[in-house]
Amino acid sequence: MEITFLGTGAGLPSKERNVTAIVLSMLQELNEVWLFDCGEATQHQLLHTKIKPGKINKIFLTHMHGDHIYGLPGFLSSRSFQAGTDRPMTVYGPEGIKDFIEYTLKLSHTHLTYPLTIIEINEGLLFETEAIKVYAKKLAHGIPSFGFRIVEKDKPGELLVEKLKEKGVRPGPIYGEIKENPTVTLEDDSVIHQKDFIGRPKKGRIISILGDTTYQTAHEEFVKNSDLLIHEATFAADKETLASNYFHSTNIQAAKLAADASCKQLILTHISSRYQFSEMDAFLEEAREMFSNTSVASDFSVFQL
Amino acid sequence: MEITFLGTGAGLPSKERNVTAIVLSMLQELNEVWLFDCGEATQHQLLHTKIKPGKINKIFLTHMHGDHIYGLPGFLSSRSFQAGTDRPMTVYGPEGIKDFIEYTLKLSHTHLTYPLTIIEINEGLLFETEAIKVYAKKLAHGIPSFGFRIVEKDKPGELLVEKLKEKGVRPGPIYGEIKENPTVTLEDDSVIHQKDFIGRPKKGRIISILGDTTYQTAHEEFVKNSDLLIHEATFAADKETLASNYFHSTNIQAAKLAADASCKQLILTHISSRYQFSEMDAFLEEAREMFSNTSVASDFSVFQL
Ligand SMILES: [Zn+2]
Ligand SMILES: [Zn+2]
Repeated sequence: MEITFLGTGAGLPSKERNVTAIVLSMLQELNEVWLFDCGEATQHQLLHTKIKPGKINKIFLTHMHGDHIYGLPGFLSSRSFQAGTDRPMTVYGPEGIKDFIEYTLKLSHTHLTYPLTIIEINEGLLFETEAIKVYAKKLAHGIPSFGFRIVEKDKPGELLVEKLKEKGVRPGPIYGEIKENPTVTLEDDSVIHQKDFIGRPKKGRIISILGDTTYQTAHEEFVKNSDLLIHEATFAADKETLASNYFHSTNIQAAKLAADASCKQLILTHISSRYQFSEMDAFLEEAREMFSNTSVASDFSVFQL
Repeated sequence: MEITFLGTGAGLPSKERNVTAIVLSMLQELNEVWLFDCGEATQHQLLHTKIKPGKINKIFLTHMHGDHIYGLPGFLSSRSFQAGTDRPMTVYGPEGIKDFIEYTLKLSHTHLTYPLTIIEINEGLLFETEAIKVYAKKLAHGIPSFGFRIVEKDKPGELLVEKLKEKGVRPGPIYGEIKENPTVTLEDDSVIHQKDFIGRPKKGRIISILGDTTYQTAHEEFVKNSDLLIHEATFAADKETLASNYFHSTNIQAAKLAADASCKQLILTHISSRYQFSEMDAFLEEAREMFSNTSVASDFSVFQL
């Protein structure tokens, strides 16, 4: 998994930070690339990365504030130049997102070349595939704002091929049988116990990406045990009242949530343009005192998981 | 007058050219700054200029294609951070623009801090002030697409102060009288003929800015005698059929219009991303063979008039 921050600012673009967009690339795991939020000029930011719009097949929108959705009509339109009928797109977002997309595309006489599905979401399980589950939860931002919890399923262990070969079992259809049955009897009547020849299952990872929100203890349960929590930190610790008045969080509040919910890693984003890059060291230090494995994202920051 | 091109590409943004937006700054003439079209990330482009969004007080939208309007909601929203009730904004655009703006702002819970007036336009005189007249004309782009003709009124000549002093007429209320009356009788009964003491009137300039369109001889009348014609040139001359099929123009067609309409200067913009910067010399040469005073705009090109 690879996470690329395309925009890490709050409210309006600055020279230093664009408005919100985060790419979660799971090409190896799922052959899918997901986009979280799509502020204005997200398609422009993508031009400076290796991420192809045509490869992005799911978009999740946390809430309907302009700095999180105004890039959507342009992104979806331009994607038509790269993606044909074999590259469907699904957009998940709050109530109103379906009308917003359909209205703006129609008004601008835009005809997409690929199939588009738009799903207005509620709390709970959004969808489940063989490999992954995605949950949504309503946060506290004055207007409906969602967090997403992406849960990779545990992968069964792999066949211990070398160990089988040592025992004289050559590769062939028998390997498939061992994978699927607890015991298999060989031609020489010896019995293979699957558990002896299967490695340890690979634990699935959990990534939680929250939209704009005030700090709430109620969010602990939702982000519990995340390998990675991506959380807004519009303000530094001394602006807690301001943060609360504008339905936002501080760096320390995000860190407290990560600590209390036993997360493994925290990345802060959605930083107010009042903060210069030169102030980010102090901003980060404040958060690290509460939760040490914290980073602050910049535009084009890439994190491997 | 100063013209700044913020976006000079066609259809979708590239690394080299953003989608359409043109600023016509008339700070000295009118204390006004006008924006023509507002493609996605126009507000981002402005960050790299000295033009303040709060200073822009009129926006003219040629047509409703996404690459000309998708930056509007973001621009209008962000302008609230710079402009209060004393900085009203008027948007002129085709039918549907009022609903587009009101809908997107409402949906994103955006409240502007300044008064916004939205005027859906037809052909003819859009408005007239003491100093300027603006006309609109429907072009040929498959959907309604407008051109704008901005006509500065001639300015009366200035009082020839030195000449009056030589004649012994000292500065005072008498100067105002001379300015306003064909003849004025002085205390010594000598008569001042205004025409002898007023300099030559300053000819107003004409600027024509056309939206996307195919080449039409019918446009000659509308852009006639323009000091500056800004015209799209999506394609080079060899793509005339393609241009026509997509309701666009070639470089040579734009140059022919400028020549036939006795324009003084032509600037080409809205260049397809199929053309690299390295091809622009040839692209420009083609047009110059038809109309020599031609330029091709790049993003952040500035022209003085
Ligand atoms: Zn936000
Ligand atoms: Zn266009």
